[in-house]
Amino acid sequence: MIPNSPIRADRIGADIDALAAITEPGRPWTRRAFTPLFLEGRKWLERAMQDAGAVTRVDAAGNLIGTIPGNKPALGTIMLGSHSDTVPDGGRFDGIAGVIAALEVARALRDQGVVLEHTLEVVDFLAEEVSIFGVSCIGSRGMSGTRPAEWLVRESGGLTLEQGIAHVGGVAWAPAQRDDIRAFLELHIEQGPVLQNEKLDIGVVTAIAGITRIEIIVDGRADHAGTTPMGSRKDALTTAAWIALGVEELGKALASGETHFAATVGEFEMTPNAANVVPARVRMLIDARAEQRDDMERFIEELEKGVAAIAEKTGVSVSTPRLVSDNPPTPSDPELLDVLDAACQTAGAKHRRMASGAGHDTAWMARITKAAMIFVPCVNGRSHSPDEFATSDDIALGAAVLLDAVKALDTKLQGTE
Amino acid sequence: MIPNSPIRADRIGADIDALAAITEPGRPWTRRAFTPLFLEGRKWLERAMQDAGAVTRVDAAGNLIGTIPGNKPALGTIMLGSHSDTVPDGGRFDGIAGVIAALEVARALRDQGVVLEHTLEVVDFLAEEVSIFGVSCIGSRGMSGTRPAEWLVRESGGLTLEQGIAHVGGVAWAPAQRDDIRAFLELHIEQGPVLQNEKLDIGVVTAIAGITRIEIIVDGRADHAGTTPMGSRKDALTTAAWIALGVEELGKALASGETHFAATVGEFEMTPNAANVVPARVRMLIDARAEQRDDMERFIEELEKGVAAIAEKTGVSVSTPRLVSDNPPTPSDPELLDVLDAACQTAGAKHRRMASGAGHDTAWMARITKAAMIFVPCVNGRSHSPDEFATSDDIALGAAVLLDAVKALDTKLQGTE
Repeated sequence: MIPNSPIRADRIGADIDALAAITEPGRPWTRRAFTPLFLEGRKWLERAMQDAGAVTRVDAAGNLIGTIPGNKPALGTIMLGSHSDTVPDGGRFDGIAGVIAALEVARALRDQGVVLEHTLEVVDFLAEEVSIFGVSCIGSRGMSGTRPAEWLVRESGGLTLEQGIAHVGGVAWAPAQRDDIRAFLELHIEQGPVLQNEKLDIGVVTAIAGITRIEIIVDGRADHAGTTPMGSRKDALTTAAWIALGVEELGKALASGETHFAATVGEFEMTPNAANVVPARVRMLIDARAEQRDDMERFIEELEKGVAAIAEKTGVSVSTPRLVSDNPPTPSDPELLDVLDAACQTAGAKHRRMASGAGHDTAWMARITKAAMIFVPCVNGRSHSPDEFATSDDIALGAAVLLDAVKALDTKLQGTE
Repeated sequence: MIPNSPIRADRIGADIDALAAITEPGRPWTRRAFTPLFLEGRKWLERAMQDAGAVTRVDAAGNLIGTIPGNKPALGTIMLGSHSDTVPDGGRFDGIAGVIAALEVARALRDQGVVLEHTLEVVDFLAEEVSIFGVSCIGSRGMSGTRPAEWLVRESGGLTLEQGIAHVGGVAWAPAQRDDIRAFLELHIEQGPVLQNEKLDIGVVTAIAGITRIEIIVDGRADHAGTTPMGSRKDALTTAAWIALGVEELGKALASGETHFAATVGEFEMTPNAANVVPARVRMLIDARAEQRDDMERFIEELEKGVAAIAEKTGVSVSTPRLVSDNPPTPSDPELLDVLDAACQTAGAKHRRMASGAGHDTAWMARITKAAMIFVPCVNGRSHSPDEFATSDDIALGAAVLLDAVKALDTKLQGTE
């Protein structure tokens, strides 16, 4: 129970269990976008939204939206939500916790007999996770008018993304960009260990880190591992090993500051990968995240220098690091941050400000409205794994913060219009 | 032309070209054991052996043998040869050069009207390269009585090894071990750059390195690459990188002595290998080769210590290095080495003694007879590659050395019986 709040942890727990049951059998917790299970989950959500007093629809971008008209609809919309799709083998809370928290806010308002001045909407964005089409945040990009047109012809298993959107009830060619949303708030599990380690309830997210992916190819030479003297080799693996260690060292140096930074070599493939052949080639993909763009620029610059120095030292040629993708950080709206801090205070939630290392739908919504998000703790920071866990009490406290924030914004935003 | 020798480089070149033509179309130079192409190559070799005056047969172990009876068959057999099967995509000289050189020795003796006191045999061993059954040196292990019985039930594409041996004309259950062979000599391309770099004609092989394969598993933890702070990770890749560099350093240290040593991380697989996940696990397979058993033992000991120290330092757990296979070095017969040195002198071949880093049929033949081998240069040390090349003149000079050695042994071995 949350003191002085109509938010109910038991309802949240029951909803999360109900959604968790809609998973691929034997592969918890999997509900991939565009699958029949995904549509089954949405059918459940649709009914739950209606039970909360909302009118439901799927927008042109394929998002499921529950609308509770405000007293002054001309003021525009306050939107809350997240996503119900999951990664494979993990996703009992990642996404759905934010949809259910938004739903609980709507129910709490109804229970209190409160109708907002603004229209309130609860959203389940389509395919936030990397989907079968190889892209992510399909729904929030659609709603923010930033979904690349060329994505629609992407194919997977004989289905184009255009057909996939139609399959969930959207209309890919129709305009989906919204201009009536005055604020967007998202609750999400932290997916990291910081809140648990610091025994805090809520992270107020200052920014969603920029994500840059960098590919490096190490070009050695395949030689017989038995016969080629140690001094006559061009071993791609040992050169790549120096680079992996350099990435970690650079990452640690940049992470030692006040703001979030992380760098990881997530993909590493070696060829020919045969026991008796000196490694000829390694492809590495670096994932770097920065709250501050300056840090990312410094990382890229130092990486280029470091890689060149390693190639010089080992005599094995290494490609210039290639930016495969490069998205800048998204700072949260400062006004919303203050509202969220105050709401934490009201709800009695111990909180801190922190950056999100992961990408979220909020980053796309920030293109068209004031946007911010809050984190709730997850056990041991585990996520994208069957072990992912967050307690109903922690999610409920987050929902209470959202509820307070929504009420505050309903007043505050009238002044700014 | 080789001065004062009946060995003919033109015949050797023509034979090698003829065998090279028996390759998978569009995939030079591929003639895998047990395939129809392999049998076609053997049909060609059988005729060539018969043309050289030999009586041909396939022994119980599946080796093709051409026999030229000596004047005193009771003295036993001097055997020469190598293998005609290839690795995929490479093998224009690896193996077949030694079979053709042996054949040319037989032809040269015939051309000179020389009949040895010992019986002379030319052999094409079955499946020296790692075969579809996952094992190598099938024929020479059979002939030396060291082929594990359990290999016969190994299956590939619905065929057991027992059936595979029958398919090439052998009888897997019949005894194949020979006790009449008094000496075995093999010519092979070096598969390394030493002879070319030192502008030498012949390597007289002092030992075939022992081969030890060692598996190491690094067990980290899969975490979200964006949200997990740099200091809270258990990154399997960076720990594995330290190990790969340690293996190279240890290998270089042991290779700096007089005798051959090499260590390579040939296999390296990382999971989950996803852009946004901290690497959870790396499996590494180390290939180590030592001319001296002491070096290998020191390597294994230092590796264990080093790996434990790295795990301690990084906090990521690493399995104790596991010996997947461990074969000791095979020293060549000292008497044969002296004979080969003298034969190089006679043939005017600039030579040195050196170890073989690669495994060869000779290592198995050494179990049942005096055995040794010689290397001829190959261009840039390239092998197991379509670029593999050796000149007919270099192979012919090697054949001339074999011819002189065979003649010397034919006399010498009579005294030792």
